[in-house]
Amino acid sequence: MKDKSTNHKEIEKIRKNNFSTKRVTVKRLENILYKSFKVLDHGFVRVIDYMGDDSSVVQAARVSYGKGTKKLNQDKSLINYLISHRHSTPFEMNEIKFHIKLPIFVARQWIRHRTANVNEYSARYSILDKEFYLPKNQDLKPQSNVNNQGRSGELNTNEVNYYSKILKENSKRSFENYSQLLNEDENGNIFDNNKKGLARELSRMTLPLNAYTQWYWKIDLHNLMHFLCLRFDAHAQYEIRVYADVMMNILKKWVPLSYEAFISNRLDSLTISSHGIQYLKSLIHGKKYNSKNVSKRELENIKKIFNC
Amino acid sequence: MKDKSTNHKEIEKIRKNNFSTKRVTVKRLENILYKSFKVLDHGFVRVIDYMGDDSSVVQAARVSYGKGTKKLNQDKSLINYLISHRHSTPFEMNEIKFHIKLPIFVARQWIRHRTANVNEYSARYSILDKEFYLPKNQDLKPQSNVNNQGRSGELNTNEVNYYSKILKENSKRSFENYSQLLNEDENGNIFDNNKKGLARELSRMTLPLNAYTQWYWKIDLHNLMHFLCLRFDAHAQYEIRVYADVMMNILKKWVPLSYEAFISNRLDSLTISSHGIQYLKSLIHGKKYNSKNVSKRELENIKKIFNC
Amino acid sequence: MKDKSTNHKEIEKIRKNNFSTKRVTVKRLENILYKSFKVLDHGFVRVIDYMGDDSSVVQAARVSYGKGTKKLNQDKSLINYLISHRHSTPFEMNEIKFHIKLPIFVARQWIRHRTANVNEYSARYSILDKEFYLPKNQDLKPQSNVNNQGRSGELNTNEVNYYSKILKENSKRSFENYSQLLNEDENGNIFDNNKKGLARELSRMTLPLNAYTQWYWKIDLHNLMHFLCLRFDAHAQYEIRVYADVMMNILKKWVPLSYEAFISNRLDSLTISSHGIQYLKSLIHGKKYNSKNVSKRELENIKKIFNC
Amino acid sequence: MKDKSTNHKEIEKIRKNNFSTKRVTVKRLENILYKSFKVLDHGFVRVIDYMGDDSSVVQAARVSYGKGTKKLNQDKSLINYLISHRHSTPFEMNEIKFHIKLPIFVARQWIRHRTANVNEYSARYSILDKEFYLPKNQDLKPQSNVNNQGRSGELNTNEVNYYSKILKENSKRSFENYSQLLNEDENGNIFDNNKKGLARELSRMTLPLNAYTQWYWKIDLHNLMHFLCLRFDAHAQYEIRVYADVMMNILKKWVPLSYEAFISNRLDSLTISSHGIQYLKSLIHGKKYNSKNVSKRELENIKKIFNC
Repeated sequence: MKDKSTNHKEIEKIRKNNFSTKRVTVKRLENILYKSFKVLDHGFVRVIDYMGDDSSVVQAARVSYGKGTKKLNQDKSLINYLISHRHSTPFEMNEIKFHIKLPIFVARQWIRHRTANVNEYSARYSILDKEFYLPKNQDLKPQSNVNNQGRSGELNTNEVNYYSKILKENSKRSFENYSQLLNEDENGNIFDNNKKGLARELSRMTLPLNAYTQWYWKIDLHNLMHFLCLRFDAHAQYEIRVYADVMMNILKKWVPLSYEAFISNRLDSLTISSHGIQYLKSLIHGKKYNSKNVSKRELENIKKIFNC
Repeated sequence: MKDKSTNHKEIEKIRKNNFSTKRVTVKRLENILYKSFKVLDHGFVRVIDYMGDDSSVVQAARVSYGKGTKKLNQDKSLINYLISHRHSTPFEMNEIKFHIKLPIFVARQWIRHRTANVNEYSARYSILDKEFYLPKNQDLKPQSNVNNQGRSGELNTNEVNYYSKILKENSKRSFENYSQLLNEDENGNIFDNNKKGLARELSRMTLPLNAYTQWYWKIDLHNLMHFLCLRFDAHAQYEIRVYADVMMNILKKWVPLSYEAFISNRLDSLTISSHGIQYLKSLIHGKKYNSKNVSKRELENIKKIFNC
Repeated sequence: MKDKSTNHKEIEKIRKNNFSTKRVTVKRLENILYKSFKVLDHGFVRVIDYMGDDSSVVQAARVSYGKGTKKLNQDKSLINYLISHRHSTPFEMNEIKFHIKLPIFVARQWIRHRTANVNEYSARYSILDKEFYLPKNQDLKPQSNVNNQGRSGELNTNEVNYYSKILKENSKRSFENYSQLLNEDENGNIFDNNKKGLARELSRMTLPLNAYTQWYWKIDLHNLMHFLCLRFDAHAQYEIRVYADVMMNILKKWVPLSYEAFISNRLDSLTISSHGIQYLKSLIHGKKYNSKNVSKRELENIKKIFNC
Repeated sequence: MKDKSTNHKEIEKIRKNNFSTKRVTVKRLENILYKSFKVLDHGFVRVIDYMGDDSSVVQAARVSYGKGTKKLNQDKSLINYLISHRHSTPFEMNEIKFHIKLPIFVARQWIRHRTANVNEYSARYSILDKEFYLPKNQDLKPQSNVNNQGRSGELNTNEVNYYSKILKENSKRSFENYSQLLNEDENGNIFDNNKKGLARELSRMTLPLNAYTQWYWKIDLHNLMHFLCLRFDAHAQYEIRVYADVMMNILKKWVPLSYEAFISNRLDSLTISSHGIQYLKSLIHGKKYNSKNVSKRELENIKKIFNC
């Protein structure tokens, strides 16, 4: 069964939609509406719908402050203020809806963000596509020695080839088993008409975590930025970071002022503990400071960032 | 300070917006976008933005079921099925944003629905309008004898006049006190230039619960229907029901198929307990049934609805 | 690496805890605290902590109503009223925390309930146990012909044996591949000291959906009942229903009055649409009713339940 | 009608509860369970129930990391790590339930935190107490000139006396009007037996925003800390900060390790934007930095904190 979601003809057709609306509209986002952005080997991200723009954030904030709309540089300054002071409610007034195809192990990380709405393809109801995430050789890395939940360093060519082959064969064999249980191949051809297939809700149990699933995922702007804060981060797993990467570009097109404020006040900001503040203060004033209260992790981080 | 939100010129201007969009668009809702619908004496409801239509619900449901779009009568049947089986996630995929002006005591009931996004006019920051909800004479009713949290019966003319006068005078005097504390009238004129006004965040304490506030309120379709279920109900306080009433008409324009399914499967449906089922069964089969397990409340309700 | 969570000695030790508390305490729940209830072949449900009892629900409701506590039969009647009128907030005042071990495909259904708190065992960080859900022969059933998302009917012995073997072998081989990628077996023995294992966050991709995971899962009483409504239902997949089954027994021990009201007013209740009401009304009064407005699904359901 | 919640006899009685439990128990919190802590003139905060302690946070985090429990200093370090890296889910595993009495205008700020459970005293159902928040003279301050939503500076004695009198009289008269509408005084004495009172749901409209309400409020540890972050802050209104103040002391008794980590990594921490980082870096290295990219607000803040 072919993935209906990548029906290119249908997508091309709706991409020609041209309706009249009184709603706020973002031209740069309209230009990419419904378009698939490829991620990993078989995944994608598509924007399906959206509500609001930068001015909607400002407008919501100004209901609270009882002021009318202002000039662009004031809007920019207000958005900056709202993000840096973590006033989240005005950003909750915007929504965006995505169609996403992603490996199941990525979906399992993703779904921990509970403040979004999800409709996922059901493997109780339908048969999954014969598609598996097989990392590129350059992305196959050994377990990190310093970070218990990450990869770092390099494998040698033999190791890469060996692990790559296992992943490929495991995927292939799992799908064969899935088909055998269903008594049906991926195109809907029955193997043996005299045999009853095992229920889909059970057959799916053979599928490995690198099989692809897909869902509609809708989230407000505040929670999207929170999601990106965690998933665009260097400590996030590479396979989810590449999705966050695509979504950062979409964010930039959608709400350029919020995007900019988000970068400088959240993504590239630094939070220093009270002990870290004391340490930095002594550095600035050229005094000695007993850094023993600063955690090792924070101390290293401060030294790296301030190059001191 | 005049209420900026009822700036009729500005509203008329944005009502002439005419943008091009690829997004699903609902013509009947576009026709009333930004328009104020009057509620009570000074309140209103305006739709500010929306995302999705009936087809978006169907589309989200069909991601789960892995099917393409279908004909209208199948969509209708699917929406009916989803609502009657309380499959809520596809309805969460649509959003609507309102601008609402309402008395504070209504706002306090309203805000209990936590699954919405709110930006409220801040009386720490700004001065409230000189507007108070003063019920029409016909809406002034005595405490109900049967329902501890409602009104029923009629007051006589003297009572109505007396209570009406108290409400009016209380509102007037409270606002005078508010102005005295601020050292400023509702038009921003300072009373005494040699006097410092009390901070707004404190002055507001004299305002009574029938003063008006306003907010932006954004909610998804599923939670809107849940809100309407509770607030369009005969047991809801009249002053919130009139808002629900206006929103029911908006719902009908926005998502006519969901609206219809919502009416017959939620609003006008009946949930019968296991004891009630046994009782009804015996009625149908003309048998006697010991109704003692059925609560008095349910028994009365069943008798009323089935006229038996 | 053995599953630390089933460290029987440690569990036996904390089951002997005996602290003094002023908090409301439920003796029947204390008796089973920390105890593992087996589910499926390797799964379990354990209660780790709880807050509140039936009286806490009543107390919360009576803050709203401004009344003191009452006698047992009044409490029972109030709880019944609250559940049948879907007044959910008093039930949100109680919490329960579970430790659960479950197959990944079950976990993926489970996590859709977003109104709970979850901490899951991380396969980025740790190595999963060598445990897979292998259904009993009697639970291996063919795809249902009437229900697209379920199983029904029977497989013949050959089919059962064949499918059972595939599931078993797929699990075994997948874990072998997992170990090969990690360069480490389930007891932490390194296969080849000269080889670097693939990062855990990648190796896990070979694991099939019937591998077991585990989590702490905390939920309030209202949302627990909502979860059970959906997952104790005949249409829920068998493999999640067995967890709901165990949790129903726990619910009964924890809050017996709420449990009883939940059964008769939710689980065993019936919601009839406005069309269904008209149809039933005509049945009761012995009149003919054109049933064409009643959906086929509802008509069948009414006929079955009322045996008419 | 007297406030049932301050029934001192009943509180003294339940404070003598002594039940046996296997649950984790916090002695220092048990010591103050049910006890009223006075806030403002008529308000209070009481802890009604709780679930979990510092070790529960650690335990939940270690499910994710698949490790057993550790020694105290490792627990402390883990909690510090979790808070500084904003890993919130382990803190969601603890719950606390408060009974709080507070002025309505404070309640309206408070309720914006939607991630808590609330049961509020209903003025549709019951009659409110004759209690109003009347600020002490020292807390009556003029509108701030720099902060649009705050107070600062001092009023002179005449102004204080004048405003204090208005607040007092407004409260008194409003309650008289409330009683007249109800046809009933605060002790339940009917004024005129031949007159029907106005329904409670309408009469309450005369009550001013400084009238007291009360509620049960339950929240998890993560969200409690978030609430305290915003409400213990110097920019929060004084009248809500005093509640946060009491709750900080409760937090300290309940989860001392989390409390300490919260203070140094959240409350007393500083978040610096990417521009601020560049500015600080140049300070440390004694270089000139064009500070024009740093917002005026941040620049002032940095100068104040680092005394430079």
